[in-house]
Amino acid sequence: MTEHTVRSFSQDLEELQGDLARMGGLAEDMLSDAIQAIATRDLVLAETVVARDPQVDALQVEAEKKILRLLALRQPLARDLRQTISALKIAAELERIGDLAKSIAKRVKLVDSIEAPSALKGVARMGKLVTAQLKRVLDAYSALETDAANRVWSRDEEVDEHYQSLFREVVTYMIEDPRTISACAHLLFVAKNLERIGDHCTNIAEEVHFLVTGEQLPTDRPKVDALNSQ
Amino acid sequence: MTEHTVRSFSQDLEELQGDLARMGGLAEDMLSDAIQAIATRDLVLAETVVARDPQVDALQVEAEKKILRLLALRQPLARDLRQTISALKIAAELERIGDLAKSIAKRVKLVDSIEAPSALKGVARMGKLVTAQLKRVLDAYSALETDAANRVWSRDEEVDEHYQSLFREVVTYMIEDPRTISACAHLLFVAKNLERIGDHCTNIAEEVHFLVTGEQLPTDRPKVDALNSQ
Repeated sequence: MTEHTVRSFSQDLEELQGDLARMGGLAEDMLSDAIQAIATRDLVLAETVVARDPQVDALQVEAEKKILRLLALRQPLARDLRQTISALKIAAELERIGDLAKSIAKRVKLVDSIEAPSALKGVARMGKLVTAQLKRVLDAYSALETDAANRVWSRDEEVDEHYQSLFREVVTYMIEDPRTISACAHLLFVAKNLERIGDHCTNIAEEVHFLVTGEQLPTDRPKVDALNSQ
Repeated sequence: MTEHTVRSFSQDLEELQGDLARMGGLAEDMLSDAIQAIATRDLVLAETVVARDPQVDALQVEAEKKILRLLALRQPLARDLRQTISALKIAAELERIGDLAKSIAKRVKLVDSIEAPSALKGVARMGKLVTAQLKRVLDAYSALETDAANRVWSRDEEVDEHYQSLFREVVTYMIEDPRTISACAHLLFVAKNLERIGDHCTNIAEEVHFLVTGEQLPTDRPKVDALNSQ
């Protein structure tokens, strides 16, 4: 396309969704590498995750600039407007997911002393579940499929259940071997970060539902336990 | 005002900022009550915090609807557009702060068994600091004062320092008295939630800076320690 071609709104929107797909792909890779780094105590891999986070941040800043320009120049309405605003909100969710993956990666060296393979395996299992949720919700977003988005939204309960049982397991492990308390405290935060990434996936699912239907999903998702919301 | 009066954009924006001020006031009260409930083991007060969260959620949904309507009908430009988009983002930050205050309140009964007054006092001190940050940034937003917003942004380092020292104190306490491990794990999450509320305050500060100047603050705030970002 030459500079003189008049671009359509849908081309602008496609470009924006391309940016978001790139952000999503980056966040997904960071997350799955962070989980692998925790499970295999791979400090080098963990460092590459940390090093990739500024790319996600830069893409978010770029996407926001494009969105403001798009709102100012195109003044979109109805579904076009919803799609533009949803892109803004989803970019923010992806930036947070990148941050949380970075935070998990930074803790790899701090949980290194934990000798309980079952606790690390539990984190890896929960991590796989959350990575699958992220992949599914990004697919639902790029295909604008509400059914797939709604399934992600419902399946967050499973993530919460994993978090609950992991929390209990890690606390038990701390009690049994107080030398690991500090490392295990960091492992609790890793589990919490995964649970929060799950929440960000449900937020994206809610956005997909809203942008396609114009309707909000209920603000309160059914929760396993009153306490797993943070 | 009768229905037939033609409203100006600035009236719409004022109404929106009124909604956000209400959300901010609610979040501020929830936070300071949650901290007091933790410090004084006040379960009744904690329950009132939990009960107030749906109001904040409802105000956010309401604010978003108004913002979409405003974008569609008024098609604001330049600073008006930035102010509208900032309202959207700040409403999301306030909703998260309400959630985190609720999460702190829910943990009051779980940290009840902790007998270390110094740990609870440490949380209360950190809580006061964070409440002050929230108050300052809300004032900066309603007055659109970038200097005040920038000061909040810089002062988050102090919140991070408090978090670091509280983390160490609580872990030491767990090691000394393993019976308290489970309760202390919840106290660590309370401290982490306060640290995150501090981060949300800096996000609001960044928005105030952006909406007034049209420029972004650097994405990386100087951090006390590479690990306190989550």
